Amino acid sequence: MSLPAEFGLIARHFAPLAGEGALGLGDDAALLDPPPGRTLVLAADAMVAGVHFLPDDPPDSIARKLLRVNLSDLAAMGAVPLAYLVTTAFPRGVAQDWVACFAAGLAADQAEFGVALLGGDTVATDGPASFSLTILGHVAPGTALRRVGARVGDDAWVSGSIGDGALGLLALTGRLPADAELADRYRLPRPRLGLGQALVGLARAAMDVSDGLVQDFGHLARAAGCGVEIRAEDVPLSAPAGAALAADPALRSRILTGGDDYELAFAADPADADRIRAAGLAAGVQVTRIGRFVAGEGVRVLDAAGESVQLSGSGWSHF
Amino acid sequence: MSLPAEFGLIARHFAPLAGEGALGLGDDAALLDPPPGRTLVLAADAMVAGVHFLPDDPPDSIARKLLRVNLSDLAAMGAVPLAYLVTTAFPRGVAQDWVACFAAGLAADQAEFGVALLGGDTVATDGPASFSLTILGHVAPGTALRRVGARVGDDAWVSGSIGDGALGLLALTGRLPADAELADRYRLPRPRLGLGQALVGLARAAMDVSDGLVQDFGHLARAAGCGVEIRAEDVPLSAPAGAALAADPALRSRILTGGDDYELAFAADPADADRIRAAGLAAGVQVTRIGRFVAGEGVRVLDAAGESVQLSGSGWSHF
Repeated sequence: MSLPAEFGLIARHFAPLAGEGALGLGDDAALLDPPPGRTLVLAADAMVAGVHFLPDDPPDSIARKLLRVNLSDLAAMGAVPLAYLVTTAFPRGVAQDWVACFAAGLAADQAEFGVALLGGDTVATDGPASFSLTILGHVAPGTALRRVGARVGDDAWVSGSIGDGALGLLALTGRLPADAELADRYRLPRPRLGLGQALVGLARAAMDVSDGLVQDFGHLARAAGCGVEIRAEDVPLSAPAGAALAADPALRSRILTGGDDYELAFAADPADADRIRAAGLAAGVQVTRIGRFVAGEGVRVLDAAGESVQLSGSGWSHF
Repeated sequence: MSLPAEFGLIARHFAPLAGEGALGLGDDAALLDPPPGRTLVLAADAMVAGVHFLPDDPPDSIARKLLRVNLSDLAAMGAVPLAYLVTTAFPRGVAQDWVACFAAGLAADQAEFGVALLGGDTVATDGPASFSLTILGHVAPGTALRRVGARVGDDAWVSGSIGDGALGLLALTGRLPADAELADRYRLPRPRLGLGQALVGLARAAMDVSDGLVQDFGHLARAAGCGVEIRAEDVPLSAPAGAALAADPALRSRILTGGDDYELAFAADPADADRIRAAGLAAGVQVTRIGRFVAGEGVRVLDAAGESVQLSGSGWSHF
């Protein structure tokens, strides 16, 4: 009796990724002895071709983005990555090479981030390629970073640079000149795991910037029952994003609301600014103070003169 | 600033399902303190409209099937259910009522099976509705039922009745007369959690029957490095499946290879037959001895005269 083709796909491409408790992906479920005395941190994100990635993105970068957007959720909680499960819906007739390249992307990032595949499922779809990944990490009990906790007067901080992913998508779809660095930032998020772990006990609230800087700081402010002011001139930009903005100031809205940043947005006591800078240095990630939490509600974006900036759009929406 | 529509979907339909560690679905990840001294059991299954369910199946039954096929994986390992994460890719413009009914199905089964929603993601797709669910359960360390472990001479057992799901799909698609009981078995698997837990320390190997009885007993035999003989006349049938088979003996292959059974297939020492029957009684599930593991390899299906039965098809395949 020959086995159906999906067993071949799993055995050939995914079984080599399996961690110890995955039982070679040959059982109905995986076994995991959680790290004693730690709280598990769990998140699941889905990605659909044409929505979260471009259908002609390299398959390895699609897989790595899938893993990294989930790792970014762990980073936002200050968690240490542990393992993951993935379900893949490949278009019927998908090429073995495509799946091999997808799996190679997972393998590369497993090594880079110290996680192992625990299990999952491989199915066929008549629609666009669709993937879902559940990530597991862990923190010391009671220490996870949360979205709630900012206070009026806290500084608003952000890691890395903002807008690269959104501009990268424009560059990849011909709406901006081609730019390898921006394209790479769209395809390969940098989950700020080291920084997130260093912010445990230091940041008062944190989240990752996935739906746009303005919208996501809005979440932190709403959770705190206050408002937040962002100084547009202080928002950190990469060299290519800065050049694109200089050439077309209308890109400001896209940078501040476009999403796909996967940086950390967080609140901290101004007295801790030096400790935050030291945490950024230790983690090898730029951290920038871009505003503060204020009485009131909502997000105000201010220009260099302190006047409110009107933005077009307020962040990514699916429906 | 208004929030995007998917936040409304999540707040309205999914937040009420959230368990304690889900943090109201408002953070980047969920927190879970695993049961001390227990091994976690994890599985993830995906379902795509038109592949794993019919596009016009009731949304609540689609959600319940999604949860139950994963619970069935826990049953196969003898695990106690704990919590789940779910990602949903709804077609753009999905009706609120559809999502409400889907969530109501999850709510009903959360109550029935004692699990809570920990987290997930809601996205839009231009393709068929697609769902992925990761289930977490737990077992005492070292006690999980595995696919490996059957021995030559062991009895081959199966729970419940076989073929109802596959015949239910035929009935729902007009290839068999309409039948409410068979349709219900296609739409609503019965994860055999109580039986699975009762088989811990009793069954030598186990799995759930999802891809077809013959294929799945083939997995148990292969894992054991032996073969298995199935007595076709002893395979338990429901009343409507028995009537359908009497009317059309060619349905035998569909019953034995069609899949979607979500019963438990397991191996046990013949000396434990009475204990297995007692476990079935205690769990309220019929258990039937349908064959035995033998030297050699592969699956032989035997008729009443002990002759090999030729089947058309050997189980579900995606690609």
